[in-house]
Amino acid sequence: MHASQYHINTLKEAPTEAEVASHQLMTRAGMIRKAAGGIYTYMPMGLRVLRKIENIIRQEMDRSGAIELLMPVVQPAELWVESGRWEKYGDELLRIKDRHQRDFVLQPTSEEVITDIARNEIHSWRQLPINFYHIQTKFRDERRPRFGLMRGREFTMKDAYSFDRNAEDAQASYDNMYDAYMRIFARLGLDFRAVAADTGSIGGSRSHEFQVIADTGEDLLVYNPDTDYAANIELAPAPCLLAERAAPGQALVKTATPEAPKCELVAQQLGLDLTATVKSVVVATDVEEDGQTKTTVYLLLIRGDHEVNDIKVSKLAGFEKGHRLATEEEIVAVFGCKPGYLGPIGTRQAVQVIADLTVANMSDFVCGANEEGFHYTGVNWGRDLPEPIKADLRNVVHGDPAPEGGKLAIQRGIEVGHVFFLGDVYSKKLNATFLETDGKPAVMQMGCYGIGVSRIAAAAIEQNHDERGMIWPRALAPFEVVICPIGFTKSDAVRQTATDLYTQLKEQGVDVILDDRDARPGIMFADWELIGVPLRITIGERGLKEGVVEMQARRDASSTNVPVEQIAQVSVERLASL
Amino acid sequence: MHASQYHINTLKEAPTEAEVASHQLMTRAGMIRKAAGGIYTYMPMGLRVLRKIENIIRQEMDRSGAIELLMPVVQPAELWVESGRWEKYGDELLRIKDRHQRDFVLQPTSEEVITDIARNEIHSWRQLPINFYHIQTKFRDERRPRFGLMRGREFTMKDAYSFDRNAEDAQASYDNMYDAYMRIFARLGLDFRAVAADTGSIGGSRSHEFQVIADTGEDLLVYNPDTDYAANIELAPAPCLLAERAAPGQALVKTATPEAPKCELVAQQLGLDLTATVKSVVVATDVEEDGQTKTTVYLLLIRGDHEVNDIKVSKLAGFEKGHRLATEEEIVAVFGCKPGYLGPIGTRQAVQVIADLTVANMSDFVCGANEEGFHYTGVNWGRDLPEPIKADLRNVVHGDPAPEGGKLAIQRGIEVGHVFFLGDVYSKKLNATFLETDGKPAVMQMGCYGIGVSRIAAAAIEQNHDERGMIWPRALAPFEVVICPIGFTKSDAVRQTATDLYTQLKEQGVDVILDDRDARPGIMFADWELIGVPLRITIGERGLKEGVVEMQARRDASSTNVPVEQIAQVSVERLASL
Repeated sequence: MHASQYHINTLKEAPTEAEVASHQLMTRAGMIRKAAGGIYTYMPMGLRVLRKIENIIRQEMDRSGAIELLMPVVQPAELWVESGRWEKYGDELLRIKDRHQRDFVLQPTSEEVITDIARNEIHSWRQLPINFYHIQTKFRDERRPRFGLMRGREFTMKDAYSFDRNAEDAQASYDNMYDAYMRIFARLGLDFRAVAADTGSIGGSRSHEFQVIADTGEDLLVYNPDTDYAANIELAPAPCLLAERAAPGQALVKTATPEAPKCELVAQQLGLDLTATVKSVVVATDVEEDGQTKTTVYLLLIRGDHEVNDIKVSKLAGFEKGHRLATEEEIVAVFGCKPGYLGPIGTRQAVQVIADLTVANMSDFVCGANEEGFHYTGVNWGRDLPEPIKADLRNVVHGDPAPEGGKLAIQRGIEVGHVFFLGDVYSKKLNATFLETDGKPAVMQMGCYGIGVSRIAAAAIEQNHDERGMIWPRALAPFEVVICPIGFTKSDAVRQTATDLYTQLKEQGVDVILDDRDARPGIMFADWELIGVPLRITIGERGLKEGVVEMQARRDASSTNVPVEQIAQVSVERLASL
Repeated sequence: MHASQYHINTLKEAPTEAEVASHQLMTRAGMIRKAAGGIYTYMPMGLRVLRKIENIIRQEMDRSGAIELLMPVVQPAELWVESGRWEKYGDELLRIKDRHQRDFVLQPTSEEVITDIARNEIHSWRQLPINFYHIQTKFRDERRPRFGLMRGREFTMKDAYSFDRNAEDAQASYDNMYDAYMRIFARLGLDFRAVAADTGSIGGSRSHEFQVIADTGEDLLVYNPDTDYAANIELAPAPCLLAERAAPGQALVKTATPEAPKCELVAQQLGLDLTATVKSVVVATDVEEDGQTKTTVYLLLIRGDHEVNDIKVSKLAGFEKGHRLATEEEIVAVFGCKPGYLGPIGTRQAVQVIADLTVANMSDFVCGANEEGFHYTGVNWGRDLPEPIKADLRNVVHGDPAPEGGKLAIQRGIEVGHVFFLGDVYSKKLNATFLETDGKPAVMQMGCYGIGVSRIAAAAIEQNHDERGMIWPRALAPFEVVICPIGFTKSDAVRQTATDLYTQLKEQGVDVILDDRDARPGIMFADWELIGVPLRITIGERGLKEGVVEMQARRDASSTNVPVEQIAQVSVERLASL
């Protein structure tokens, strides 16, 4: 590609609404242009990145034995009604009507359509296992789209769906996809981690997320630096930090703690460590019974320095239908006190107390006294209040002991892939059966496997950028090498060397662009550093007189002189490491 | 690809709703599956065809200098309001609302978005010319989708948009695209024709359609077998068939023609040739003037054996705001007679008479007498009625003299591509300007260029099929060669030869599938003839004993024996001609 024949339009400033690096830099580099909130045109330079990601995914999916097809963007509502998602899926599902007022959706995923295909196409155990995938435009009507491609409304996703005879085979299909994903993200050249994850609204019994490590990630990942263990913090079990409960050493004392509605302030006032305090969190469940709503209030207790993990709470017995924070009115009715000084002792009404595993082994601890401005100190289970129900209620924190020994660490990640073991969640509802060897119908076991194609581009940038712009791994770069001739039109030697090198690199299969725009070096360099091309070769008259050109990788602090006759070879070698 | 690892699911019967060969065969071959009316899943075998088409288009578009990007499927209404198409485009434009009740459209084409991009990205004459294209999912909410991929609602289209400094440059861009299209359709291996065409609702001043020749095509193409001349019948000028008007030879006579409301019946009753009769067609225009609708009735006269061309009528002076067939009430008011016996002589009210070029040179002709059961014979212009307004009102018919000599012929075609010279239709409305060399803003000149990717697949089948199934040109075939081993699991020699040949063909870059399903030969052959793979190689024990395998092209009446050791080479040579 010659730059003069291409469309390059970099901007000095990012739009004010761009909050994250990937959004700012992709806009400044002219890779994306906003069409509407969360809806972008992929400009030529951006589309090249997208296509490279797609191609790697496609190759590894094909290698895994998955078969590509293409399901439509506009899907009939009937199938979504059948699966129950027409009702359950919230406002992110864009429901539309055609000219005949028939209901359709713009697909956010394709479980329904693929299960419909499977039940029509697959009749015998001989046709299983099978795994279909497509790379297609998706739509999720985010309430507040932002962060550019990170949380767009229209985006490109690869989604695959496996069908198997039984759970054991389905697990093998799941493992096969897991392996394919490991290969894909390795080939993309990204620092990533596969973590055990919650199955969320997709359903199913097992899942892993593939997370690109980046400080700006929205997800917290728990991992053991010494082993393979890794899980999303949503799911990672938090151990009890006290091997056993010490005997009571203090008397129960109601202590004045004025203006201390938070554990940090209480600890400060009492001169105690935060780990001696216990935080009270009041939640409620509402269950319909005989047409009436029965509300139950629960008091969750976690150590003062810990945080409640809402996913874990949602899995408590009795919480199946959902839970919520209790209202102030409900709190006052039960505790006789406003939030800030709540505790398990002396409540106005009986309340279900659930203690985090660590809290359950604490002794002589501090908690609210259900009276504004007062806390109890020297609180002890059994003596001052009944033994609690115990549960893992908290997020893991950095340094927690790991299950297999060692200490857990935490880092931030951006979810770019997700594999789910679905079981029969969809196949049962849509009655996707096949005839087993005994001639009897059996329900297919499913898995579903997504990769956010456009999101990978954004995540790669969040992970790889500096103050000058993006730094693409070679596999994703819009171009692998840029040749920057200084004085392209003025110097025959420069033009000839640049053109020759371009031809040589092309012949070696390198994706190279020759910047023949004849712009000033500063402008040229700034453009290509912003765009993040991994390797730049600068050709100038002065260097040519000494028989050298300059080579500089995007991550290099400075350039290296390379003899002209070796530059093609040296470039190819250098690229191999980028 | 090994068939056992692929998804092959052929059907004996096509769905009853499938009216055309492409729809029937693609469904039977398992290439498409209906998701909703006019909305299909491309099954693996169908997607392969689609991708091959896309790749050829992409290569030739890139070669032409066009730059690929990707505009969104969901587009904001604001831009469509700006262009005026939000109002003008009928019910085929699917208008949708997001969760915030903001208006969007599912793109049928992307003139608005690309013009918005151009006005934001292009500031200087130095950036022109430029041509952007994308290959993207389109949606047109057809009232009655049918014919499978031929007239679907969701489909894949390549659309390109050129921007130029002036009309001359824009013409060069248009010619460049025309040439690229010629290369594309030639490479696709289809019998096609580029024809001059009407610009229709897209607007602009010049256009060509690219038509795949097929008896089932909806379009009629006029061409000169001896020259390059070709045009859609909508546009093709129909010459006057009478060099000059003969002097009157008969007297005007009102003649009884009972029960003869059609020219054919009149000619029969009177023992005349149909070419002696003149057909009366009454149309009306409604023009708003000072808040009132002014209706004008016109009498169009064409020769009895000709047909009115509605596109030509729509271009008559005074017809700019549209026209319609007159109502029976209007006809009776003007002619004092119901349709069937209408004519220009003795109308109740004055009426604008417009005669086709041929009719205007007729003498002693027959036309209705505005009295049920009666026609005039011996009618002559000037003597019996005033000289008419003359215009080309009719369709060309087979054998009409061609403009450059020779005779015109007519064939049917399926429109798969269309190039438009748009001028400033969109750029003016969206104010897409750039700074000219003199520093003054000028409006960009545009062209737009579409190819129906999924429609090409259907058109290729309409053109190439027989009673057994599809017959793909090599360039579009889902697989180029199928190897059919007879007794794959039973015979080591067969399996070994088949596997070796598969490897050899793969190494030579042939897109080959090995049918290792171990099905009976009849089933295997029927599947591959239905799917239409261009070349089949059958390997059986009996042949191997004599050192030969059978080769048969899909179009061949019978197979040829080829020595085993030559088969890879012979296959590659044979493929070159398919």
